[in-house]
Amino acid sequence: MDQNMIQELNILSQEQNQDSLNEYVSRFQPFDIAAALSEMEFEEQLSFFTTISIPIGTEILEYLEPELQYKILNRMKEDLASSLLIEMSSDTVVNLLLSIHPHQAKKMMEFLPNDYREKISTFMNYEPDTAGRLATFDYIAARINWTVDQTLQHIRKVGHDAEITSYIYVLGSRGELTGIVSLKEIILAKPGTKLEEILQGDTISVSVNMHQQEAAAVLSKYNFVAVPVVAQDNRMIGIITVDDLIDVIHEEATEDIQKLGGSQPLNEPYFKNSVGALYKKRIVWLLILFVAEAYTSSVLKHYEDTLSEQIALSFFIPLLIGTGGNTGSQTVTTLVRALAVGEVEFRDMFKVFKKEVSTGFFLGITMATVAIVRAFILGVSMDIGSVVALSALFIVIWASVVAAILPMVLHKLKIDPAVVSGPFITTFVDGTGLITYFTLAKIILHL
Amino acid sequence: MDQNMIQELNILSQEQNQDSLNEYVSRFQPFDIAAALSEMEFEEQLSFFTTISIPIGTEILEYLEPELQYKILNRMKEDLASSLLIEMSSDTVVNLLLSIHPHQAKKMMEFLPNDYREKISTFMNYEPDTAGRLATFDYIAARINWTVDQTLQHIRKVGHDAEITSYIYVLGSRGELTGIVSLKEIILAKPGTKLEEILQGDTISVSVNMHQQEAAAVLSKYNFVAVPVVAQDNRMIGIITVDDLIDVIHEEATEDIQKLGGSQPLNEPYFKNSVGALYKKRIVWLLILFVAEAYTSSVLKHYEDTLSEQIALSFFIPLLIGTGGNTGSQTVTTLVRALAVGEVEFRDMFKVFKKEVSTGFFLGITMATVAIVRAFILGVSMDIGSVVALSALFIVIWASVVAAILPMVLHKLKIDPAVVSGPFITTFVDGTGLITYFTLAKIILHL
Repeated sequence: MDQNMIQELNILSQEQNQDSLNEYVSRFQPFDIAAALSEMEFEEQLSFFTTISIPIGTEILEYLEPELQYKILNRMKEDLASSLLIEMSSDTVVNLLLSIHPHQAKKMMEFLPNDYREKISTFMNYEPDTAGRLATFDYIAARINWTVDQTLQHIRKVGHDAEITSYIYVLGSRGELTGIVSLKEIILAKPGTKLEEILQGDTISVSVNMHQQEAAAVLSKYNFVAVPVVAQDNRMIGIITVDDLIDVIHEEATEDIQKLGGSQPLNEPYFKNSVGALYKKRIVWLLILFVAEAYTSSVLKHYEDTLSEQIALSFFIPLLIGTGGNTGSQTVTTLVRALAVGEVEFRDMFKVFKKEVSTGFFLGITMATVAIVRAFILGVSMDIGSVVALSALFIVIWASVVAAILPMVLHKLKIDPAVVSGPFITTFVDGTGLITYFTLAKIILHL
Repeated sequence: MDQNMIQELNILSQEQNQDSLNEYVSRFQPFDIAAALSEMEFEEQLSFFTTISIPIGTEILEYLEPELQYKILNRMKEDLASSLLIEMSSDTVVNLLLSIHPHQAKKMMEFLPNDYREKISTFMNYEPDTAGRLATFDYIAARINWTVDQTLQHIRKVGHDAEITSYIYVLGSRGELTGIVSLKEIILAKPGTKLEEILQGDTISVSVNMHQQEAAAVLSKYNFVAVPVVAQDNRMIGIITVDDLIDVIHEEATEDIQKLGGSQPLNEPYFKNSVGALYKKRIVWLLILFVAEAYTSSVLKHYEDTLSEQIALSFFIPLLIGTGGNTGSQTVTTLVRALAVGEVEFRDMFKVFKKEVSTGFFLGITMATVAIVRAFILGVSMDIGSVVALSALFIVIWASVVAAILPMVLHKLKIDPAVVSGPFITTFVDGTGLITYFTLAKIILHL
């Protein structure tokens, strides 16, 4: 972090010189000022926000963590806190209020005018991870019978508070969304043109209860920078902006990666998780996988006599099950991701099966070859070598098939396919692989 | 896909009725029309694009795959193909020309006017995965000494061709980027105001050679919908729009997921990969991991006598190494992702180490407990049970430590930490875990 910036911000805040502070801060991006503030002491942060003008302060406050936003607002004079809260975009306020203790949230809400407070409460009640929860009501609405000049006048009046001004949402008489016009279309249109003359195309919107991941998919499919959110009867309640949906895309990818690694998703950034939290997220799957894997001990115990007779068979256990696990992990991660981004669907099952079995076959042949080389180098008998090679072939194909089919079936059953993690496939293939190995050993070695 | 839409498009295209086709198509989103077209025969697609008006046709053509874009343009009359190519956004044209055979690209480029062709060639020469390659030069530039009215006039003139009109890029006399104004600021400003009076804040841009992932990070950090791309001397060459960067974010997450699964990234959507391509991407790591894992055979051979004496020790081999692999996979995927999104950096090494060792310790204690229970159920001696439990404790902690440190060190060495995949960690922990297991066995069982 730039130490000069921190020093400058401190000096100007302590002098309580609003004009100089505004002027200095305006030279930078709000994000960078917020980053510098995060490195400062709480009293310094407080003195910054009591000095800076409200519109500029709000822009910066938006970038801070909800806990810090609360701490700062809570220590301010009520009227200043109230002005900042009202200027903040409504989705940030909702996120702030839901991140603090309900008692604290109640206190914060008293800073808000009645009608605004009611609106915020509605948004707080939308389910987590839905489109409604992400929406902001700071958008510009226009009436269908307005002309472009009327609309421009309206934008000039309310534009300062809106999060996005590139699109104007055209509403019918009951607040229902009837169309979207871009600011560009308004400017390019002849004066006097009515909005209904410009409106065209079908209006894409997302439902308030839609999962955030689906809403993100709609937005990236159509290359929108914002998408309107509607409730019953197509009544418009707000918009979701692309920056919030980029966060969703990051979040969902992180969750999938953590699940594929065999852990429950963390929900919060890494360092926000205590050791206890990490433990809880991880132990669940470790125990489930342990119980599943425990089966391998029984398999090996069952073949105790075979093992005693040919102790060399044991040398290849980790190698064989390892190779099976690796193949399975490759296939399952590729397919889970392909399902998540919509490249593959359930109806492609047969195509996927064919592709994976073919690939598995060639991989298996290669691995069988190197397995027999390995057995030769280790100096075990050629008989054992062939058992190892044949098992490698079978296990690789088997792992490919299981890893191809399981995620697709789970996807169809509306279970998140990412629960079929690499570790899950590895564990599944371990037991079945061992049975194959010993069955082949008994046949080929006449045990 | 909507069969009615396909039928309607076909009828109107065959009638060569441009007005009715334009009117029908304008009722829908270009993406949806493109999706319907993808389901149609090539001759039908061709007749659609020769009937529809150029501006509307271009919007839809942009959504098709480059190979199809080429096939269609190649079969058209030259002047129509030329008009469509010129109307397309420049980044789409670059992508098209780089996706087809150089001979075909050369032919397409002859459809372009000289100056446009030169510009496109420059963009085609930027390295893959850089900001330059993603940039489009269809943006609106203004001069620093213009007034807002002059700027608005200019927007009205050139706005139709621009990809984004919400931001106007203000250039100095040598084409250097000196600031950005939003369309909103221009509309809200008093007539007669000069652009230099509105300009404020420092202008964030990305360098033409910056990696696309970094450019995406800049855009999502500042919540921009577009970011300007500059070459030497701050000379502006184009903008990258948020929709292209969303694709980058998806692409990079997909690559990380595939690498973490132990495969080389596919670069193309799943079904575009032939069996041969999948084989090539997977066999590399399978072989590397096989060679690494081959070590376990030598370890087991080394302990052959110990194994023969206590065959029961072999029962727990898959269980112990499996548990180690699972723990390692959980930690490594979480950290690789945390590094990728910037939640964790190299300087956090010690904090990460402490957190992972502590978590590993508690996980290890739990797994040791269930391991001893499992040994008891299987009916092996309590001595062997304690060897298994102690090994489980050690292996879990060891796996956590390795999985925590390796990705951070690689990140520091500028090697993509995602190469430390789940399978990689599993393989690494397998060998070392077995040595621990047999060492403990020799000590405790006095072998």
